[in-house]
Amino acid sequence: MLWFEVNRKSQVSLTKQVYQHIRELILDEQLIEHTRLPSSREMADQIGVSRNTVLAAYEQLLYEGYIYMKEKSGSYVAPGVALQVGITTDFRQTKSHQPKIEKMIDFRAAHPAIDHFPRKVWGKLIKDICYDIDNEIFGYGTSNGEEKLRASLANYLGRTRSVKCHRDQIVITSGATQALYLITRLLASQKGRIAVEDPVTDEMRGIFVQAGANLLPISMDNEGIIPRELPTDTAPSFVFVIPSHQFPTGITLSIQRRIQLVEYARKMNTFIVEDDYDSEFTYEGTAVSSMQSLDPNTVIYVGTFSKILSPAIRIGYVVLPPALIEPFQALKWYADRHTSTMEQLAMARFIEEGYLEQHIRKMKRIYQKRRATLVDELAKYFPSCKLIGEAAGMHLVVEMHNIIFEKSLLKKLQEADVQVYPVEHYAMKKGHHLNQIVLGYGSLTEDQIKEGVLRIATVINQLHL
Amino acid sequence: MLWFEVNRKSQVSLTKQVYQHIRELILDEQLIEHTRLPSSREMADQIGVSRNTVLAAYEQLLYEGYIYMKEKSGSYVAPGVALQVGITTDFRQTKSHQPKIEKMIDFRAAHPAIDHFPRKVWGKLIKDICYDIDNEIFGYGTSNGEEKLRASLANYLGRTRSVKCHRDQIVITSGATQALYLITRLLASQKGRIAVEDPVTDEMRGIFVQAGANLLPISMDNEGIIPRELPTDTAPSFVFVIPSHQFPTGITLSIQRRIQLVEYARKMNTFIVEDDYDSEFTYEGTAVSSMQSLDPNTVIYVGTFSKILSPAIRIGYVVLPPALIEPFQALKWYADRHTSTMEQLAMARFIEEGYLEQHIRKMKRIYQKRRATLVDELAKYFPSCKLIGEAAGMHLVVEMHNIIFEKSLLKKLQEADVQVYPVEHYAMKKGHHLNQIVLGYGSLTEDQIKEGVLRIATVINQLHL
Repeated sequence: MLWFEVNRKSQVSLTKQVYQHIRELILDEQLIEHTRLPSSREMADQIGVSRNTVLAAYEQLLYEGYIYMKEKSGSYVAPGVALQVGITTDFRQTKSHQPKIEKMIDFRAAHPAIDHFPRKVWGKLIKDICYDIDNEIFGYGTSNGEEKLRASLANYLGRTRSVKCHRDQIVITSGATQALYLITRLLASQKGRIAVEDPVTDEMRGIFVQAGANLLPISMDNEGIIPRELPTDTAPSFVFVIPSHQFPTGITLSIQRRIQLVEYARKMNTFIVEDDYDSEFTYEGTAVSSMQSLDPNTVIYVGTFSKILSPAIRIGYVVLPPALIEPFQALKWYADRHTSTMEQLAMARFIEEGYLEQHIRKMKRIYQKRRATLVDELAKYFPSCKLIGEAAGMHLVVEMHNIIFEKSLLKKLQEADVQVYPVEHYAMKKGHHLNQIVLGYGSLTEDQIKEGVLRIATVINQLHL
Repeated sequence: MLWFEVNRKSQVSLTKQVYQHIRELILDEQLIEHTRLPSSREMADQIGVSRNTVLAAYEQLLYEGYIYMKEKSGSYVAPGVALQVGITTDFRQTKSHQPKIEKMIDFRAAHPAIDHFPRKVWGKLIKDICYDIDNEIFGYGTSNGEEKLRASLANYLGRTRSVKCHRDQIVITSGATQALYLITRLLASQKGRIAVEDPVTDEMRGIFVQAGANLLPISMDNEGIIPRELPTDTAPSFVFVIPSHQFPTGITLSIQRRIQLVEYARKMNTFIVEDDYDSEFTYEGTAVSSMQSLDPNTVIYVGTFSKILSPAIRIGYVVLPPALIEPFQALKWYADRHTSTMEQLAMARFIEEGYLEQHIRKMKRIYQKRRATLVDELAKYFPSCKLIGEAAGMHLVVEMHNIIFEKSLLKKLQEADVQVYPVEHYAMKKGHHLNQIVLGYGSLTEDQIKEGVLRIATVINQLHL
């Protein structure tokens, strides 16, 4: 029986409804092969639509091969078109956005103060670009990114981070994450070993492992990674470091160690990958120069706008030794062609027109106050605690004498609505960071910081009762 | 000698200049370890800057570990900080944008008419989003993409392509390229074999191979890929097809073959990856339904906005069987976290507010005219040629009786300033497509098409003289 009720209120056209109905009957073998379909006029009368509607549906079925025509005879179901149509297994709806627990004070790190995103400026820049750029910009771009952005960036990085590079050594990536993923694909995809500072975040490990590498944890002390622990028999594919302000430890790699690392990489004919993610925010002295400036042929420099502007705009970059430019560009092309052109051009104007440095100055003042509040509050409640890495960035490490941040204490803190991050959690070799926690302050207001430290203090003081 | 001339016109601060000068002398061993530096007052007098400038530079050198202080004695060069600083090998400047040769008429495919990009609408939407969205949007997003876009897309794909999916089965990617790259990483990264239609583009092969897979070419005939050529001993990691309008051949996969493929995949417990890149533009009948609608548990559906809107906005998507959603999302997170949030939200509004379908209708009229011009001109000069795949998309294939498109002919065409694409070039098994060329017409005006066909005809007619 071919009759069915069409839905005249549906967004789906009547032709499509007729087509879909017959198609389903055929696939389901309710209409078996070589069955004659009613003429378009009969069908139109039966279901109460115009003959043209049915003709269009038949034409589509014919075009797709579900039916065939015999001259002066009509339309027939084609052979070989029955199939038990698959049904998606009962799909449990998942909520992507969990309701935010506003009560919790979360000292998470690497999250900037997104309420200060320069909406007006960015919105205007990106609209202007849509209005005034050349047509060809709306086509495919180049895999290394827009020349304008690479040029502004080369100038900016030279001035602020002493990075030595030509704009053609830069490749624009979708965040630092993609830069690190592709570097790993390039240098370590065949189960290559990457020497990493230990502790290191799960997320960073995930990037390297997903891209096909194995990890070789190298211990740190208060000067940073310990170069004499690096293997001297077989070189790792590269040594990954965050020299300016390591995450999670907050340590700045000493100049002696930097030099030892460069010498190691030269001797072993390998690379150093320098992740420089938050050094724009330096509160004591000016920012430490990049390691890249010590040897642009050995050090691959990775940076991002996620922390200084917004992670929602996925723009990062990598500065490559000349020999790696072409192979890296090829990988980028096959991974996702290139990063969004309009956002690249907006970023280029954001830098050229001075907005970036203006925004950094503004954010530095904000973070400086938040940091001062955190340091003061910690000193008030924990006069004997030691702070590490408080000179820069958006997080610091607190080392507390005689306090072990084990499970039951962390649970008590959570129950008191305060979330802290034990350094031990990030350690691959366990047992060396039991009394340290990471406190990120980038996305917390001064009031939240005060309340958060009070909650930590309340829980910890109860331990000694 | 510590004296040097500061540059008061430089963008680099005086403090930074002093710091950099001394740092270089130390690295270069012109100042050897334990050498005493002049007092800040002496130094300031020597080079003619304020004492505060020198103090700030010394503080930075001290902070970075280049120098150390002895109480009541002064500042000294630290040990272990000498290094022959690396210099980038002479960097030959490359031009990213080659000057366009305007004379050449390039029948390249898969390039949309970018001069019709809806600048005003898109610019306004993206500005509005910057102005009016919640603060939290400027933070990290979720790896599967913005819920609003996934919801609009699920509705749109259901209506126009009969794709059966819940919004949570969709992951937003940076173009279809990234979707295919990550599917390969997920299913075939360990030298897995991917069955591909032969011919297939170099770019597509590049994606699969760079992601770690091997290729298994499967022949096509005029109904598309030939399922009985698929291996029955070991299943490939997946079968990759472009069923609606294959590139380069232009063939639409017959419904019988589609069903055979789904049955094969079910039996062999593998997947089909359906790339549906230009089926929005259908000039005869309505678009062929997606293969995904035959079995959403077996078919992975990949789409993109590159062809219908612009490749400069890197937004594609994948519709996944439920079992693959979580592992795919994890891969996306480690590859680049997520696709630009603001552009995703702009795209969601572009769909919701009806602009997308309006734009598609407009572009379809434009391409329809270009296609008609191309078909007419070909009929005029080559009455016996056969056209394949002219019913849809932005390219067609011309098969010419007795003409072999070999090197010398292609060279003559190029010399006549017309670029065509031999199908043979894309073939892995050679020798079956010698008399076929791809002509893309998406980015050519009607006048260019007329002139282009005339040039082809002129060159080919000369062959017979």
